[in-house]
Amino acid sequence: MKLDFSVAVHSLFYLEENNPRKIASRELAASLDLNAVVIRNILSVLHKKGYIEGSVGKNGGYQLKRALADINVGELYDLTIPPTISYARFITGKSEGVNQADPISDNMSETLTDLFTLADDQYRSFYHRFTLADLKQDLYHHGYFKQLVKKNDK
Amino acid sequence: MKLDFSVAVHSLFYLEENNPRKIASRELAASLDLNAVVIRNILSVLHKKGYIEGSVGKNGGYQLKRALADINVGELYDLTIPPTISYARFITGKSEGVNQADPISDNMSETLTDLFTLADDQYRSFYHRFTLADLKQDLYHHGYFKQLVKKNDK
Repeated sequence: MKLDFSVAVHSLFYLEENNPRKIASRELAASLDLNAVVIRNILSVLHKKGYIEGSVGKNGGYQLKRALADINVGELYDLTIPPTISYARFITGKSEGVNQADPISDNMSETLTDLFTLADDQYRSFYHRFTLADLKQDLYHHGYFKQLVKKNDK
Repeated sequence: MKLDFSVAVHSLFYLEENNPRKIASRELAASLDLNAVVIRNILSVLHKKGYIEGSVGKNGGYQLKRALADINVGELYDLTIPPTISYARFITGKSEGVNQADPISDNMSETLTDLFTLADDQYRSFYHRFTLADLKQDLYHHGYFKQLVKKNDK
């Protein structure tokens, strides 16, 4: 779900902005405008993967462990939104070998799976071109990111 | 929904394979392994957009109107899976101006919308690089499409 990615990006920005103050998940949740329960799962993943440090409970709270310029947007995307494992429910035709008289139906699954997989690779590689520092520029100067992409694609 | 795209691709392949025989939606549905009701909607769109010709009812059926090499995969993708109009449900933070004390929360929506929109543009441009003739090669020689992408990206 894309929301998980947004939760991660927003949380890391918020921790950076308030560094070195320890931020409780409750405060973070208010900025994200989400229930604290929803974001704890993502915070736990970010903690496990070394993006943030800290603890829950009394006097607890999180701090950013890495510089925004060292956090790749694509890595964060892959971490929070894993690739689709099976495209079966998006694909037409019969399972292999069921109907030898209809090669299209027999082979659609393999061909479309490759198409969708390669398209998704391209999609993800787009995110990998940027760091959170790039995105943060856009937060304060909206339009920066669009310009950056335009320039890169020239 | 990605399934609509697969329905369109599969239908056009099937009509081409059986040209110039008129194909009823019932026969098409059997190849797609879907209920005929599910595919009629897509067939109607393909008909309206000039990909296929024909009629429903007695002696009815569809024929392909264009060559596979003239049908762009990306056009078909855009036609069957329109771009997301609003990313609001995937985005954290408050609506603009609600909380001037928290610029991150205020600005996340604009920044993430640009990020998601530009990433989706890239995703769709991948599909636009190919025609149905490219995909059909892969149906009969699986692996062709993967090779083609590899070669193009060099």
